[in-house]
Amino acid sequence: MTDKTELIETAEKIVEDLSQKNYAEVKRLLSEFNSVDLAEMLYEIPDDRLSIVFRLLPKELAADVFVDMDTEQQETLLSKFNDKEIKDVLNGLFVDDTVDIIEEMPAAIVKRILKQADKETRDSINAILSYPPDSAGSIMTTEYVSLKEEYLVKDAFEKIRRTGPDKETIYTCYVTDKSRRLVGIVSARTLLLSTPDDKIADIMETNVISVDTHADKEYVAREIQRYGFLSMPVVDKENRLVGIVTVDDAMDVLREENNEDFSKMSAVTPSDKPYLKTSVFKIFLNRLPWLLLLMVSATFTSLIISSYEDALLGISVTLFACVPMLMDTGGNAGSQASVTIIRGIALGETMPKDVLKVIWKELRVALMLGVVMSIVCFGKLMVIDSLYNPVTPMVALTVSLALFITIVLAKFIGSTLPLLAKVIRLDPAVVASPFITTFVDAISLIIYSNIALALLG
Amino acid sequence: MTDKTELIETAEKIVEDLSQKNYAEVKRLLSEFNSVDLAEMLYEIPDDRLSIVFRLLPKELAADVFVDMDTEQQETLLSKFNDKEIKDVLNGLFVDDTVDIIEEMPAAIVKRILKQADKETRDSINAILSYPPDSAGSIMTTEYVSLKEEYLVKDAFEKIRRTGPDKETIYTCYVTDKSRRLVGIVSARTLLLSTPDDKIADIMETNVISVDTHADKEYVAREIQRYGFLSMPVVDKENRLVGIVTVDDAMDVLREENNEDFSKMSAVTPSDKPYLKTSVFKIFLNRLPWLLLLMVSATFTSLIISSYEDALLGISVTLFACVPMLMDTGGNAGSQASVTIIRGIALGETMPKDVLKVIWKELRVALMLGVVMSIVCFGKLMVIDSLYNPVTPMVALTVSLALFITIVLAKFIGSTLPLLAKVIRLDPAVVASPFITTFVDAISLIIYSNIALALLG
Repeated sequence: MTDKTELIETAEKIVEDLSQKNYAEVKRLLSEFNSVDLAEMLYEIPDDRLSIVFRLLPKELAADVFVDMDTEQQETLLSKFNDKEIKDVLNGLFVDDTVDIIEEMPAAIVKRILKQADKETRDSINAILSYPPDSAGSIMTTEYVSLKEEYLVKDAFEKIRRTGPDKETIYTCYVTDKSRRLVGIVSARTLLLSTPDDKIADIMETNVISVDTHADKEYVAREIQRYGFLSMPVVDKENRLVGIVTVDDAMDVLREENNEDFSKMSAVTPSDKPYLKTSVFKIFLNRLPWLLLLMVSATFTSLIISSYEDALLGISVTLFACVPMLMDTGGNAGSQASVTIIRGIALGETMPKDVLKVIWKELRVALMLGVVMSIVCFGKLMVIDSLYNPVTPMVALTVSLALFITIVLAKFIGSTLPLLAKVIRLDPAVVASPFITTFVDAISLIIYSNIALALLG
Repeated sequence: MTDKTELIETAEKIVEDLSQKNYAEVKRLLSEFNSVDLAEMLYEIPDDRLSIVFRLLPKELAADVFVDMDTEQQETLLSKFNDKEIKDVLNGLFVDDTVDIIEEMPAAIVKRILKQADKETRDSINAILSYPPDSAGSIMTTEYVSLKEEYLVKDAFEKIRRTGPDKETIYTCYVTDKSRRLVGIVSARTLLLSTPDDKIADIMETNVISVDTHADKEYVAREIQRYGFLSMPVVDKENRLVGIVTVDDAMDVLREENNEDFSKMSAVTPSDKPYLKTSVFKIFLNRLPWLLLLMVSATFTSLIISSYEDALLGISVTLFACVPMLMDTGGNAGSQASVTIIRGIALGETMPKDVLKVIWKELRVALMLGVVMSIVCFGKLMVIDSLYNPVTPMVALTVSLALFITIVLAKFIGSTLPLLAKVIRLDPAVVASPFITTFVDAISLIIYSNIALALLG
C-alpha cells in the first residue's frame, strides 16, 4: 500500500536531509521501507547522491535493493564502488540475479565483478551464461536445497538450517540420487508436518515435473503458473538436476512476454522500460520503422484503388464511399481472429498442428458473421445511406456480397497467418493486426472491384 | 513436461480399461500424474464415465483435482455425488476455491454444498461472498497461519504443525495483536533459520505491506508480483487481518486480465475458455456486436467521403487513391499510442494524473514521426506513385501535410482517450484501437479534404 507519491516525497526529504548532513534522519527514513520500495525510491535520487544514500541503507537490505534497481543506476553505483563494496553486494545476491546484472554491464565492470566472485560463484555464472538466451538454463539459479532419499526429516532440517541462508528458496527441496539425477520432491510444508524420524524416500512426491535446460523460458513460466509451483526444477539431458526457476522470476518472464506481445500487436518495437521513463527519441525510434513499413505497403492499396477508380466511379458514387467501411470491417474481422490465435499460441493452447481445426472453426464463425453482417449492411445502405445519396438495390447487394467475402477471407488470413509464422519460426505477434489489415485490404479491394464490375459494369 | 498427447492417450487407455472393468490398471495409470495433469486428462473422459474415474483417484488428490477441473465437469460430478462425497471433497478444499465453485453452480447444488459445510466454513464462505466482485476480499482465503508477538519460534512451529494442514500457505505467517490487527510478518524461512527460543517479536518484519479488502484484485496481483511475495495480507479498515491472497491466485488473476485486455483491444468480448474449447456459436456471439458497431460507425466515414467526393475527384485521382494509406497510417499511429497507454494503465505505471506528461511526450514523438513520415510520403508519391499516375508536387504536398496532421491528431486521440476512459470509469481497453481508428479516420478525412480544397480547389 506504499504509493508512488509517498516514495517521491520521501526521496525529496532524503535529498534535503543529505544537504544538511542529517544522516541519522536519512537512515531512519530508509528503515521504514522494504527493498522493492527502496529501489523505486532511489530512482528519484540524483546520480551524484546515489552512492551516499546507498551506503546508508540497512546492511541486510542493500543487496536486495541493488537487485531491484534500474540498470543505469546499478552501473552508476558499481562504477563508484570499491572492491570491498562490490564483494559485499555480490555476496548478498543469488547467482541468477548476478548473471542478469552482468549481462547488462560494460566489460570493465563485469571484469571487476568476476574478480570479486569466489571460484564456485564464477563457475555457476559461467554455466548459466553458457545456455542459449531465453532458455530455462539462462534464467535458472543454481542455489537450491538438495536432499538424499536416505535422509530422515531431521537430517533435512539440519541441512536446510546449515545451507538455507544461501538458497533462493527452501520451500521446495529436491531429492537426488548418487548421480545427481532428480528422483523426488519434498516441500518444506511436508517436512514440517512430518515427524523427525520419517524417511525422505517415504514422504517425497515421485511424480516429478521438470523442464529441460534448453526449454523456452516462457514455456517454463507458463508451466510454473499451470502447476501452481513455487519453483520448477531444471534438468539436463541425463535428468541430472542443474538448477531451479522460482515463481517470482516466472512472473517477471510472463509480464515481459505480455508487454512484448501488446507492443508487437500494435506495431511498436517493445521497450523494456515503463512508458513515462522511456525517452521521447527512443519512443520515436520504436514506432517509426513500423509506421514507415506499413505506409509503404499501403502503396499497393493505393495502386489497386487507382486502377479500378474510373470503372467504379462510372457505376456509382456509393461504391466508392463504402471502401473505408469495407476496409475497416475486413481489418477488424481479421484482427479478431489473429489476436485470438496469437494469444492461444502464446499461452501454448493453440499449436500449428491444430491448423485444420482452427480453419474449420473460423470458417463456420466467418460464415455466420458474414451472413448477419451482410444483411445488416444491406439494410443500412438502403435505409440510412440512401438518405444522403440514392442507393440502388443492386449496388447494396454488391457491397454486401463483397463484405461477406471480405469477412470470410479476413478470418481465414487472420487465423492461418500467425500459425504459419509459428511454423517458419517467425514471431506470430509480429504478423498481427497491422500487417494482416494491409494484406486483407488489398485482396478485398480487388474482389470488391471485380464483383462490382461483374454485377454492375 | 507432461504433454497433451500423453494425457489424451492415457484418457483413451482409461476408457478402454473401464469398459473391461480393469479398475486396478485405471488406478495405476491415475497414480502417475499430479492433480493439475489429472484434471486436464479428465477433460477427455466422457461425462457418463467421469464419476467412476473420479472415484478411482488417489484419495489425497481428489479434492485438488476437483478444483482444477472445468466448471461443467464439476457440475456433472456434484450432481452425481452423494452427501458424503460432497462433504469429502469440500473438506479437501480451501475456502477461496469453494467460493469460486459456489459462484458458478446452480442454486440446487449450492444448497447441497452449504448443507455439508460446517458452521465455520459457512461463515467464511458468506464473508468472502459479501465483498464486491473483483475486490481483494472476493479472492482471498481465510486460511492463514496467525501468530502472536509473544510466541517463541518453537511455539510457532507447534502451531504450524497443529493447524498447518488446513492452511493454504504456511510459508508466510502473520503476527497479530489482541484486536487481530496485523503488526508483523515472519516467513517459514526466518523461523527455520532462527533458534527455538527466539521471540517472534524480535525476528518479525514490521514494515508490513498489506492491501484493503476493497482493493481491486488486479492491483493486488500486481503488488504481489512487484514485491515478489508468496502471499499478500488483506486487512479491513481497522487494519485487522481478514485473509490472504496467494501468489498462484495472483498469477491466475493476471493471466485472466491479460486475456481480457488482448480480447478487448481486438474488439472481441473476452471468453473464459481456451479458443479450441469454445463453441463456434459462442465465438460468433463474442465477435458480432463489435463488428456491427464498428461497421455502423464507419457510416460516418462513408458520409464524409461522399460529401467531399466530387470536389476531390475534380482535383486529382491521386488524392482519392491516397485515402486508404492516410486512414491506415492514422489508425496505426493511433493504436501505437493507445495500446502503450492502455498497457501502462493496466500495469499501474500510467495514471490519469499523468495526462499532461503523456500529452507533452506524445506531442514531441508525433512531431518527429510526422516530419519523417511526411518527407518519406512526399518522396514516395513523387517517385513510386508517379510511375503509374502523374502526381504534381502540390498534390504530394497536400497528402504529406494531411499525413502530418493525421499523425499528430492520432497520437493525441490515441493517448488521451484511454486516460479519459479511466477517469470516467470506463475500461480503457474497450476504447482501444478499433474505436480510436474509426474516430481518427473520420476527423482526418475531414482535415484532408479541407486542406485539398484550400490548397488545390
